[in-house]
Amino acid sequence: MSPSLGRSLLHPRSVALIGASDDATKTGGRPLAYLRRAGFSGAVYPVNPRRETVQGLRAYPSLDALPEVPDHAFILTPTEGALEAVAACVARGVPLATVLAGGFAEEGEAGRARETELRRILAGGSTRLLGPNSIGIVNVATGLSLTANGAFAEPEIRRGGVFVASHSGSMIGAILSRGLAKGLGFAGFVSTGSEVDLSLGEICAATLDDPAIDVYALFLESIAHGSDLRRFAAAAASQGKPVIAYKLGRSAQGAELSQSHTGAIAGEDGIADAFLRDCGIARVETLEGLIEGVPLIRRVGIPSRPLRPRVAVVTTTGGGAAMVVDQLGLRDIEAAVPSEATMARLTDRGVVAPRGRILDLTLAGTRPAVMSAALETLLEAPEFDLVVAVAGSSARFQPDLLVPAITSAARNAGRPLVAFAAPEAPQALAHLAEAGIPCFRTPEACGDAIAAVFGRRPAKALPPQVTTRAGGTSRLLDEAEGYAVLARLGLPVASHAVVEAGATASPIGYPVAVKLLSAQVLHKTELGGVALGIGDDAAFRVAAAGIAERVPRAQPGLAVERLLVQAMASGLGEVLLSIHRDADAGLVVMLAAGGILAEIHRDRSLRLGPVDRSEARAMMDEVKALRALAGYRGRERGDLDALADAIVALSACGADIVEAEINPLVVRRAGEGVVAVDAVVRVRENFMIGEAMTGETP
Amino acid sequence: MSPSLGRSLLHPRSVALIGASDDATKTGGRPLAYLRRAGFSGAVYPVNPRRETVQGLRAYPSLDALPEVPDHAFILTPTEGALEAVAACVARGVPLATVLAGGFAEEGEAGRARETELRRILAGGSTRLLGPNSIGIVNVATGLSLTANGAFAEPEIRRGGVFVASHSGSMIGAILSRGLAKGLGFAGFVSTGSEVDLSLGEICAATLDDPAIDVYALFLESIAHGSDLRRFAAAAASQGKPVIAYKLGRSAQGAELSQSHTGAIAGEDGIADAFLRDCGIARVETLEGLIEGVPLIRRVGIPSRPLRPRVAVVTTTGGGAAMVVDQLGLRDIEAAVPSEATMARLTDRGVVAPRGRILDLTLAGTRPAVMSAALETLLEAPEFDLVVAVAGSSARFQPDLLVPAITSAARNAGRPLVAFAAPEAPQALAHLAEAGIPCFRTPEACGDAIAAVFGRRPAKALPPQVTTRAGGTSRLLDEAEGYAVLARLGLPVASHAVVEAGATASPIGYPVAVKLLSAQVLHKTELGGVALGIGDDAAFRVAAAGIAERVPRAQPGLAVERLLVQAMASGLGEVLLSIHRDADAGLVVMLAAGGILAEIHRDRSLRLGPVDRSEARAMMDEVKALRALAGYRGRERGDLDALADAIVALSACGADIVEAEINPLVVRRAGEGVVAVDAVVRVRENFMIGEAMTGETP
Repeated sequence: MSPSLGRSLLHPRSVALIGASDDATKTGGRPLAYLRRAGFSGAVYPVNPRRETVQGLRAYPSLDALPEVPDHAFILTPTEGALEAVAACVARGVPLATVLAGGFAEEGEAGRARETELRRILAGGSTRLLGPNSIGIVNVATGLSLTANGAFAEPEIRRGGVFVASHSGSMIGAILSRGLAKGLGFAGFVSTGSEVDLSLGEICAATLDDPAIDVYALFLESIAHGSDLRRFAAAAASQGKPVIAYKLGRSAQGAELSQSHTGAIAGEDGIADAFLRDCGIARVETLEGLIEGVPLIRRVGIPSRPLRPRVAVVTTTGGGAAMVVDQLGLRDIEAAVPSEATMARLTDRGVVAPRGRILDLTLAGTRPAVMSAALETLLEAPEFDLVVAVAGSSARFQPDLLVPAITSAARNAGRPLVAFAAPEAPQALAHLAEAGIPCFRTPEACGDAIAAVFGRRPAKALPPQVTTRAGGTSRLLDEAEGYAVLARLGLPVASHAVVEAGATASPIGYPVAVKLLSAQVLHKTELGGVALGIGDDAAFRVAAAGIAERVPRAQPGLAVERLLVQAMASGLGEVLLSIHRDADAGLVVMLAAGGILAEIHRDRSLRLGPVDRSEARAMMDEVKALRALAGYRGRERGDLDALADAIVALSACGADIVEAEINPLVVRRAGEGVVAVDAVVRVRENFMIGEAMTGETP
Repeated sequence: MSPSLGRSLLHPRSVALIGASDDATKTGGRPLAYLRRAGFSGAVYPVNPRRETVQGLRAYPSLDALPEVPDHAFILTPTEGALEAVAACVARGVPLATVLAGGFAEEGEAGRARETELRRILAGGSTRLLGPNSIGIVNVATGLSLTANGAFAEPEIRRGGVFVASHSGSMIGAILSRGLAKGLGFAGFVSTGSEVDLSLGEICAATLDDPAIDVYALFLESIAHGSDLRRFAAAAASQGKPVIAYKLGRSAQGAELSQSHTGAIAGEDGIADAFLRDCGIARVETLEGLIEGVPLIRRVGIPSRPLRPRVAVVTTTGGGAAMVVDQLGLRDIEAAVPSEATMARLTDRGVVAPRGRILDLTLAGTRPAVMSAALETLLEAPEFDLVVAVAGSSARFQPDLLVPAITSAARNAGRPLVAFAAPEAPQALAHLAEAGIPCFRTPEACGDAIAAVFGRRPAKALPPQVTTRAGGTSRLLDEAEGYAVLARLGLPVASHAVVEAGATASPIGYPVAVKLLSAQVLHKTELGGVALGIGDDAAFRVAAAGIAERVPRAQPGLAVERLLVQAMASGLGEVLLSIHRDADAGLVVMLAAGGILAEIHRDRSLRLGPVDRSEARAMMDEVKALRALAGYRGRERGDLDALADAIVALSACGADIVEAEINPLVVRRAGEGVVAVDAVVRVRENFMIGEAMTGETP
């Protein structure tokens, strides 16, 4: 955030290369070679005690020997020497040091010890650290090719507005070469490595003021340091700079790798997904979507609301267009049929095609006048949010006919026009990219990028009072205390009473459930601590005695002192509603269908808290099983309004509540509300049930 | 199948071009231009009554004026003249005619009338028809570029073993150009159009004897003419020629398009998926997977069983490899950790890397000796079925180091080695393709092709006695008759008895269900025709009277004459088991979880019938909710053996049964069996309950 960090990162006046090699083909020699080739105009100081010169430049024996304090020191030495070099930077007051070497927390016991030492060294000064395991940082405009990534041997790096930030060092090279091949221009690159100090979010935030940057493309291995990322995303949105991201770990197998790479306790992918959505970041699912999605997200800008876009598909190739329609359909995006009015306007302009989800111009569409007229008409039609032009062989053999028709139609259009070429058509795509037209080489990347870019929600600001780290110690409440907290939040709980273990009758009428009451026990059913449907005093006594007998047998040493007596409640269905604090993402709200099948199907919706009513509604739409409570096949409707209220209420719980799970929350008929019939609540250690809660209006 | 059809298609000695244009750039002029450029050595006869010559070749005024009967006539005239031209072909005994024009069944009433007329014309002779709406056929080896597809303006079409068959005409061009860019060589192409006569399966089958063809790549819009396709797939497998396919219509929106294109009653995609699997066809989900999957399927050949391959991933770029691992994980394919023995062998050969799902050689892997040693060791390790080499920047800048390491390791390997390049690396990929190494440009296509190729089942032969068409009329049985048929098949049904409407007691003891018995009613519950849990004579009389009173009120005119009295059955769970005859796919067996949630989640498995016990087991594995009956979280196990028996029994039902749905089939505890407690059975019209069924052993 600090302007000086931004300067050290992207606009250093001087850089030291600690451990620079004389051999330009070696990893340690690359940065100097790349800096020179890129024409970096700042001072470059190779530090190498064993040489007089490095690649013809005067070498210095140590950091202390430099004539000035460099703005940035890139430490190229192997792991063993890196700590000493960082210490030297701290001692000399170098504002920014980057460590190339790996071998820290990701590599066993010795690595973890090294990382601890690294943190200790940093704590002693003002030096900020990029890495370790960072392959460097690049500012294309200034020739700051401060990287050891072999990909920057690229003869020419096209300048443009894209800033690439990646946890993986090698991927900045892959994105560079793939982007260049697709006509992208770049502002810069950073490989953030293990984020021992500077996180990806912090680094990106520090670059936000750079006017050369207009879009961020992220390659993420995890959502570690989520609050930094979230703060960056909100700031980027406010500056009109959209963010697109590819995140590893959609599969459990992939997520496992991310963890071992970064050492972070990676959240599961569903949480990452909810997190990125709430950051307003477009998450693509394909690598090509990350690169080909950039021109589209640039064109669309920052959304004020998520949109399920209605797409017009116009083509000269039915099969090619059908692939796009299929990919859109898989993402719940409608390839919409033009209105009668639009069809009439098309006919007026000499465009003849049957009315349908695809406007198939067939061979006529290779005539520029026909294609232009069709595109212009569709781009003006109020029923569409986006037009996709799907090109056939003409894209390969007659780019001079197709490209001007597309670019001229796009020029004054109020909405985006994108292109997909069914054949291999490098020339046409290059020309379209040159003109800023988003274009796609596969139907999958096309559908992926459209869904990701249009599906963005506005970035949600980080709640000011709430830290995202769980932090501190916490304690479990007993169920009655938990109910009290939930009730204070406005959540309806089953009417209940607490009785001594020896009680002989329900104080609240029948039928009731009788449950062991203890803050020590999470799974009371498994211990025989629950009796349901107790209808009279006799049954009550049997139930209480049964619990008193079973529980100590199941868990020796656990005395049954008190019981919770709770009114039986039934409804049309049950859900699970919970909040917990994820180490990376912060407050996570989960709504899930009740029961074992929902668990098997992972039928649930996640959001960062707090959520408002419309978000709560959107969550309910995402839980498929809730359709059964929404009038599916003529079934009776549940009280989904009350359920939305409950989601909103729990999600606004404030910092005192560390974790809460209501399972089940019974959903009654429409108008009859919802009611919590079992709950586990965990609060911060020193929270007192009676005290005002954080965020509570007095 | 007939050798002469194969000759007419791929090896005609003479072709007529009816309606050939003098302008080589026009659609009607292209085939002649392409035939000449490709050096077709057979006779070519342009037929054009308005010209003396066409593109310098003597033109004939009519088909009858030709000096011989051509082996193939390509009809290039617009829709209006096409019927007449086909009639001329039939009259002259031309063995094969192809119609380029569309405008038949896919275009409204007039089109359907035209198609009827076309069928009538064909019925009068021996001429076989390709199309209408076919853009032609190409044999690369003989220069038979008999197509109007502009993509065949390609300066050079590389020869090879791939034969492309596509419902879509434009897609043969897209596959050609994309394939060439990826180093594929082609044997031929056919666009099958609307399949009024020759179907895609028939055409491919007729080309099977061509030794130039070693792999088939299909672009399918539907599985129309499924039995032809199935027959072809089985024959191709027996000749060692694998088949890979991309099928449109994964989304409902996409499926809808396929229907309008082909006029076929397209099955839903789940049926198509089951169908293609049972054909042993590798169905890819991405367009690039279709093309990049060809070298892999060629390398793997025809499988003897489906395989969930254990994959070794070796790399110089952690991020690039992690993307592949993630994509494999999404498809339930394991990137496996090398064994201790393999790690030891790697160390012996100087390969140093931490043990994990990825063997990350980092920079050392750019040394050919290290990469070779790693690949050779992994290719020999018994724990892997496939090795994926993921290349980083070295693929872009040092292909001369990387490519020989990969190709030499692959040369004598007993298992496949494939490559994925993280950066843009056209040169390396071209060299690898040249050497026959399957290589991928995106992690998605890599995962897709591996899953599709290794997930193939052996092709299932078409049951000889059973036609795939539903055909003929059918009738619904009443429930008691349905039970009788099911019991004959070996399916356990609830014990039951049929009584008159006026009966006053259960003849089979209590508790029972009492149900309206009528072959006229499918939804007896909706009519108030069901009473459950009847425990004694009094309740029985009330139930019977209630049904007699409610049903005629709910459906006037429906008299309650008989009741089914059925023993109540309960178990651990319920499933839906059914068979039906799909117009395209044939006998389809479905197993689904019971209940509304299963319906919402579409939790089910489909196969072509009949299935054996291991397939039945595989179906059960695919239905997620069945985990609840398989010991999930310590739950009691259901009798899954009995369920497998039931699936096998119903799937072997023979041709007399047109449709059967058991819903629910109650699954009891392990060892206690399953029991059908409701069933709808439809049989062919003239089937008598008592008679022996087709396929029944006397």
